[in-house]
Order: sequence, then C-alpha cells, then structure tokens
Amino acid sequence: MAMTETPPTQPPIQPWRNYGQARLKAFSDGVFAIVITLLVLELKVPRLADSDRNSAPALLWALASILPKLMSYATSFIIVGIYWVAQVNMFRYVKRVDRTFMWINILYLMAVSLIAFTAALIGSYPDNRAADVIYGLNLMAVGLVLSLMWHYAQREGLTDDEHHPSLVKAIRWIGFIPVIIYAGAVGLAILSSKAALLIYAVVPAIYIYPGFMEGVLEKVAAKSEAQRVAE
Amino acid sequence: MAMTETPPTQPPIQPWRNYGQARLKAFSDGVFAIVITLLVLELKVPRLADSDRNSAPALLWALASILPKLMSYATSFIIVGIYWVAQVNMFRYVKRVDRTFMWINILYLMAVSLIAFTAALIGSYPDNRAADVIYGLNLMAVGLVLSLMWHYAQREGLTDDEHHPSLVKAIRWIGFIPVIIYAGAVGLAILSSKAALLIYAVVPAIYIYPGFMEGVLEKVAAKSEAQRVAE
Amino acid sequence: MAMTETPPTQPPIQPWRNYGQARLKAFSDGVFAIVITLLVLELKVPRLADSDRNSAPALLWALASILPKLMSYATSFIIVGIYWVAQVNMFRYVKRVDRTFMWINILYLMAVSLIAFTAALIGSYPDNRAADVIYGLNLMAVGLVLSLMWHYAQREGLTDDEHHPSLVKAIRWIGFIPVIIYAGAVGLAILSSKAALLIYAVVPAIYIYPGFMEGVLEKVAAKSEAQRVAE
Amino acid sequence: MAMTETPPTQPPIQPWRNYGQARLKAFSDGVFAIVITLLVLELKVPRLADSDRNSAPALLWALASILPKLMSYATSFIIVGIYWVAQVNMFRYVKRVDRTFMWINILYLMAVSLIAFTAALIGSYPDNRAADVIYGLNLMAVGLVLSLMWHYAQREGLTDDEHHPSLVKAIRWIGFIPVIIYAGAVGLAILSSKAALLIYAVVPAIYIYPGFMEGVLEKVAAKSEAQRVAE
Repeated sequence: MAMTETPPTQPPIQPWRNYGQARLKAFSDGVFAIVITLLVLELKVPRLADSDRNSAPALLWALASILPKLMSYATSFIIVGIYWVAQVNMFRYVKRVDRTFMWINILYLMAVSLIAFTAALIGSYPDNRAADVIYGLNLMAVGLVLSLMWHYAQREGLTDDEHHPSLVKAIRWIGFIPVIIYAGAVGLAILSSKAALLIYAVVPAIYIYPGFMEGVLEKVAAKSEAQRVAE
Repeated sequence: MAMTETPPTQPPIQPWRNYGQARLKAFSDGVFAIVITLLVLELKVPRLADSDRNSAPALLWALASILPKLMSYATSFIIVGIYWVAQVNMFRYVKRVDRTFMWINILYLMAVSLIAFTAALIGSYPDNRAADVIYGLNLMAVGLVLSLMWHYAQREGLTDDEHHPSLVKAIRWIGFIPVIIYAGAVGLAILSSKAALLIYAVVPAIYIYPGFMEGVLEKVAAKSEAQRVAE
Repeated sequence: MAMTETPPTQPPIQPWRNYGQARLKAFSDGVFAIVITLLVLELKVPRLADSDRNSAPALLWALASILPKLMSYATSFIIVGIYWVAQVNMFRYVKRVDRTFMWINILYLMAVSLIAFTAALIGSYPDNRAADVIYGLNLMAVGLVLSLMWHYAQREGLTDDEHHPSLVKAIRWIGFIPVIIYAGAVGLAILSSKAALLIYAVVPAIYIYPGFMEGVLEKVAAKSEAQRVAE
Repeated sequence: MAMTETPPTQPPIQPWRNYGQARLKAFSDGVFAIVITLLVLELKVPRLADSDRNSAPALLWALASILPKLMSYATSFIIVGIYWVAQVNMFRYVKRVDRTFMWINILYLMAVSLIAFTAALIGSYPDNRAADVIYGLNLMAVGLVLSLMWHYAQREGLTDDEHHPSLVKAIRWIGFIPVIIYAGAVGLAILSSKAALLIYAVVPAIYIYPGFMEGVLEKVAAKSEAQRVAE
C-alpha cells in the first residue's frame, strides 16, 4: 500500500526519510549566533573633534546621540533571542527531521535573519508607518513559519510520543499568540505609529519578564499531566 | 601486501586514516551558516530626504528600488540551502572520513562561499553574458566537487554498508543532474542571457517545490529496497 | 504541595523544565567565536604612496601607526577568551539548564558582545575618562551577569551534586573578585585615566600568566577535597 | 606528595583539571569557519561604466584586474584549511584538555585569525620585503604555537595512550618542518621577495597535492606499528 510510505500521523518515519537533528541544530545555532552578533557592528564609535578627544562631557554627549541605536541593539538582541529559545523549545518535542522539515527550518532562518534588515529600517524611521508595518510583517512571518514547522512535525509524526498531545497543543498556541498580536500591531500601525511601537516593545518584555513565561508553561504542564493521569 | 594499506573498495579504512566526521560537519555547518547569513548584509536601509522621513509612500518607493537585491537575497539563501541539504544528505551515507576527503570538502566549501561573490556579480549585471557564464560555472563547480566527494567516498570504502549500492548510485545521479543542466545554461548564456537566467531561477524552485524531491527520493528508495529483497 | 514545583535547592529540576545544555553551549561558542574573530576586521592594511609601495621602511613606519590597534586587538582577544573560559568552566558544574537560565546566558552574551564596541571606544579615546568608565562598567556588567548565572544555578539545583559545595563557592568567589577590581578601576578612572588603564591591562595578564590561576584552583580543589574527607 | 598533583607524564590528569574537549573543538571550528569565510568579503563586484554594463569583454577585463585578489582568496582559504586540518589531526591524539591547554589554543586561534590581516598585507604589497617578512613571521608563529600545544599535551599526559610514542613524535616533527621552512623564507625575503613568495606558494601546494601527505603519514604509521610489534 502506497499509504504506508507517508504515514499521516504518529508511526515514526522510515529511516531513509530521517535526516537527523544534529546538523539542523548546529546550522541553526550558527545562523542565530551570527545574526545576533552582527547587530553590534551597527554601533560605531562616534567621532570627536581633536580638541574634544579627552573631554568626558563631549564623549557622553556624542554617545547620547547614538542612544536610539543602543536601544535598537538591545531590543533586537532580545527578539532574536526569543526566536532562538522558541526553536530550542520546539526541538524538545520534535525528535525526527525529514527533508521538508529542514526546508521549513531554512525558511524560518531566512525570516529571522531578515530581522537584521527590518530592525535597522524601523530604527532609522520609527515614525514612518511603512517601516512599522514592514517590521510587524517580518515578525508575523517568523511566527507563522514557526507554527508551520510545529504543524508539519505533528502531522508527519516527527514529535516525541512521551508528551501528552495537550501539552504540545498548548505550546503551539503559546507560540501562535504573538502572531495574532503582531497582526493587530500591523493594523494599528496604519492608524498610529506610536501604538504599534508600544506593542513591539511590550511583547519582548513579556517574554523576558522573570517568571512569567515559566509560570504559564508550568500551569500548562501541570494541567496536561493531570489529564494524562485521569485517562 | 601493500594493497591492504589502501583498499580499493568496501573494507573499512584503518583507524589511523579515520579523522572522524564530527569536526568536518561542525566546520561545514559554520561555513554554511556564515555564508547564508552574510547575504543579509547586502541589504542596506535606503536613505530618505529629511522631509520624507515620515512618508510611507516615499519609503515604499525607495524600497521598490532595492527589490532586485531582495530577490537576489532570497534566491541565494535557497541555493546555499540546497548545497547544505545535499551535504547533510551525503553524510547519511558516508560514515568515515580520511584526510583527502576532508580536503575535497574544504574545496566544496570554497566553491560554495564563492557563490556570495558570483551571486553579487549576476545581481549587479544580470544582462551581462560574462556574469551569467561565471555564475553558471560556479554552480557547476560546486556540483562537480560534490560528485567528486561521492566518488571518492565510494571508492575508498568510506560509505555505510547498510544501504544497497543502487540507492547510493541513484542519489549520486540525482546530485549530478544539476551539473548537466547548469552546463547547458552556461552554453545558452552565450546566446541569450534571458534563457540562462530562467534556468538559474527554475532549478532551485524544483528543489524546494514541496514533495517533488521527496517523491523522487521515495521512489528510488523503494526500488532499491525491492532490489535488495529480490537478491 | 506547590513548593515541589520549584524546589529551592538540590533536587533535580523536572524534565519539562530542562532545556538541555547542548544548544546553549553551541550557541554560546558561536557568539564567542564571532565576537573574537570580528576583532581582526578592525585591522586595515595601511595605504602607501605609489612611490613607497616597495619600500620596507615606509611600510614598517605605516604599521607602527596602527600599533595601538594591534595592541587593542590582542587585549580584546584575551578578554573575550577569559569570559569564554569562565563560561566553559561554569558548565563543568552546571548540569541542567532551564528557560530562565538560558535568558541570563543570552544577557551574558549581550554584555560580552558589547565589549567589541566599548573596546573600540577606549582604543579610540584612551585618555578620555568617560571612555575609561564605560569600558569598566561593561566589564563589571559581564562579571555581574556571570555571578547571577552561578547564583541562579545553585539556588535552583541546576549544579552537579558530585562536587563539594565549598568548591563551587570558592569558584564563584574567584569569578566575583574581578567585578570588585573593576568597580575600583571605574572609581579611579574619574581621578586618573592612567591608573584605570593600568588595572584594565593587569587583570587579563593575571589570568593568562602561566600557572597562576591553575595554582589557585588547585589549592581550592585540594582544600575542598580535604573538607569532604573530614566530613 | 605534591608531585602527584601535576604528573610529569602519562597518568591521566585529575577530573577537576579536565575541561573536556567538546567546547574547545566547537569554539575552534567556529573561529576557523569565520576566518575562512570572511576572506570572500574581500572580493568586490567591479564597477562598470553604464555604457559597459552589458558588455561581456568589459566585465572580463574588469575581473582580470581583481585576479590577484582571487588568487589571494584561494591561497588563504587553503592555508587556513591546513591549520584547521592540523588541529583536527592533533585532537585525534590529545584526549584531555586542561585550562593551560585551552589558553595555548586561544593563542593558536589568535595567530590564525591574524592571517586574515597579514595575507591582505602581502596581497597588497607582494614586492615589499617588510610585508613578505611579516607574513612569514605570522605563519611561523602559527606553527610554533601548534608545536607548543603538542609539547604541552605530551608533557602533561593529555595524549592518548593507545598510540606508540614514536607515532606522535613523528607527527610532531611533520608539523614542525614548515616552521623551519618559513624561517628560511623569512631570511630569504630580506634578500629577494620573489624567492620568499615562491616558498609561500609551494608549501600549501605540498599539503594539498593528492596522496603526498597521506603517503608520508602512512609510512610513519607503518613504521611505528612495526616498532610496537617488535617490542
């Protein structure tokens, strides 16, 4: 039967389809490490007049003018960090990798590395609605590709069987919520740059606020564990 | 007997010849990750006149002018991705690595990283036949070195014995077909830039068209499995 | 009992909290490798007048003028090296990693990659007290985040149980001493640039002076071993 | 007895001294991958007059003028490759790593990444004796630090016991010979640029000439094996 060749769900994929995860992870870690480190190249030492070379106030004043770039550096570092953590988290559940999955992951890395460009765009023209929309669309694209990876992994039986389906489902939802928020921000951006910028700044803050995401994930895990025991 | 020192085929190589694959893979993943990420550095934020800073149409208009660069970014990302997937695939069959193999792989990485240059060349002068020929020759070189690696691995007994020889042979052919296509494109480029560019655009599309390559590989695997059972 | 969810100390964390160390290490190695290698990009080949192209004295003279950049290259290479070795050392004791720990580590990498900027700042304006203070604050920040990681790992039971607590405590102190020294240097910098620069140069020298740190670590290990036997 | 703390030879080092090789390898692979890939950034697309944009002869002519840069790209790629293969080879024998060894390795990576600068120097001023001498001194430094690593590893009992000492000794000598050759080239460079350049070009050619190094290593292995059997 041809159907046994491409099982719709759980039974593990055939060995010849399995590409192994090691290299996909190593390659992804490399791309994330480069994208996150290249951000510091945007920070340039300000030039001082020769008479001001040893003047501390002159240097501090000059640095104040690149403060927006420093802010953009910190924000982008955190955003790229969020998508790296999200991918690391996914591979705690995805245990097999086939050729199609590798290509969706390459698409994910492409969307992530584009952030280096769209973040520079919004950093240069924060009050330009086109920049705000494009930045939001980029973040949405990253989230959508991540959801696609989750979807594909579950459909093709690439995920681990140890975990209760409700846990994986909940984690997938947690990953999809930002896409909805960013869609709202893109809509808002057409009306008001300020409101969109506020959303772009708040979402990363939620992710790194100590204990918040941990609390959510803990509740989800506890609930899914209870469900498994009950069955 | 001197012959036992360098076996022409299957018997596994001596331990002192075996360099291990871990570092070759890590090094290759690093080079691929850097080549693929450096591509985003080509995208520069366009400069707007101060009076246009907050004008969305002005920014969109400025971005339209770098659309060719965005296209070239996406295409190059996919092409480098194809050669990375091809190398990952090869290491599903190649299980031992000697010093010569490591050097052929360094040559492969050299040809791949040159794509960053020849892609910029064709991106800058798409209608220049010299650029079209050079780009095609680069892609041919990558394919030829990949074929050389396969050839060397099989001759020196570096491949896994689990797989049927017909499977490895089929995969080698699949990897060689693009070389023939690119040779044709290089020939065409002398007559018509447009025709060559079309081929350069279509080949990556085939590779990432969902399910196509998977289908081909599946048929090959099924056939080789049938052959093994029949023997 | 809710308390079993987040144990204050030793009992190993729940599986669902464990993110694994492999990717955190790979990602960190990538960021460190890029930060340390990008430093060489600051060294530019000096331009010689056409009549001087083949004159050895002219080239040596031109190179003498970039000697400060070469010094800054070597120093920064060593400083980034120190923080890499410190993180490698920490992971000899930290055996589990949760989401919060991953984020503290991302913060650590952010502070480390900022060194590329603040080192360029102090290299350009060594006698400017603002530059001296900022550089010292950056190094303090790296040390503080490292201490925070150690603190968190011990509190949350992420460390290995094989080692005597006194050993881990001693290693944490050794890591904290530079923070105190740099705090002093920052204070001194307000009074005298020269004194602060001297401290910034001496601290790395201590770390790489052959045998010194090894001797300290050996004594600490011997003492902690004796303590364990005595108990 | 204090002596048991730092054994002069074979007995394996204490666990607390052992830093593990995994991260040292990953970090080194990262640095090598970046150094080798950054080389392609030196190749810039030549600018053509608008009237020549589609002229193949004009583009070929423009490319001919960057041929020296292409040559320097290929040569540097091979030289960095040689030092990567040499380090991979060393880790087939070195099985334990302590803090001092890690620092010698950081020194090795520093010397290797400096090649990016000295290669650009000799590429820009090939007939300048100062450039020729500096390039040779850089290559000598790399070789000397590599020898130092081998020396330290053997003295401190970091090497594997499986291999006959004569094998390791022979491999160390093979690694030291280029240092002697480069020392000669540096001496020659003062008399004649051309002679030094010839040596710099020939040494890498020997390393990648198919079969040559393999033959040497095979003979060394056979001899050491015979010696072991005879004992």
